[in-house]
Amino acid sequence: MRALLVVAHGSRRSVSNDEVRQLTNELRVAAGQEFAKVECAFLELAEPSIPDGISCCVSEGATEVVILPYFLSAGRHVAKDIPEIVASARDEHPGVTLRIAPYLGQAKALVASMLELSAK
Amino acid sequence: MRALLVVAHGSRRSVSNDEVRQLTNELRVAAGQEFAKVECAFLELAEPSIPDGISCCVSEGATEVVILPYFLSAGRHVAKDIPEIVASARDEHPGVTLRIAPYLGQAKALVASMLELSAK
Repeated sequence: MRALLVVAHGSRRSVSNDEVRQLTNELRVAAGQEFAKVECAFLELAEPSIPDGISCCVSEGATEVVILPYFLSAGRHVAKDIPEIVASARDEHPGVTLRIAPYLGQAKALVASMLELSAK
Repeated sequence: MRALLVVAHGSRRSVSNDEVRQLTNELRVAAGQEFAKVECAFLELAEPSIPDGISCCVSEGATEVVILPYFLSAGRHVAKDIPEIVASARDEHPGVTLRIAPYLGQAKALVASMLELSAK
């Protein structure tokens, strides 16, 4: 069973975290059969943590968890923090595939989205 | 003449700022006739500043500048800092229309982009 875990930075403003949760809900609907489970987790300042998010997916039967960094640039969080956390989680969950997808800033569609927003 | 100014947070890591500049280059190509000028500016930690970015567009003949917040959530920067900076710039540039577009996190295509990245 494949799970998708959206990983955001987390904010002191609960409304920002709720935006991520709302987007995760939309993603769950859009994912259809592709991912049996779609959840979110936060690097800091909000719950669940990334290890807890991964454990939650695994406890519900995920044999593969795709971790999607909801970040626009490859800063330290994307380049170092998230890979380190995922590496630790691999030790905790042997037999489960944990794969980090490209971060959101690498999406090819961003340029088109930006033009669309600008035209409003 | 319409200009598009992509406004990012700015980072101490120059590679992150360069990612924004590279994306701005792609956006310039994609914009075609829609925007005669496409530039980027940074809220902090990188140059040019937002006021300098706006002044640059105006000095080159822009009568309308669309400011696009390159942010994923409506945190303090999007909700307060950028609008305040743009409000000050309006006082500096009477006769020029300064419009803030929805921030990137509101793009409808994000969900599809995230699924695409996850499938890689």
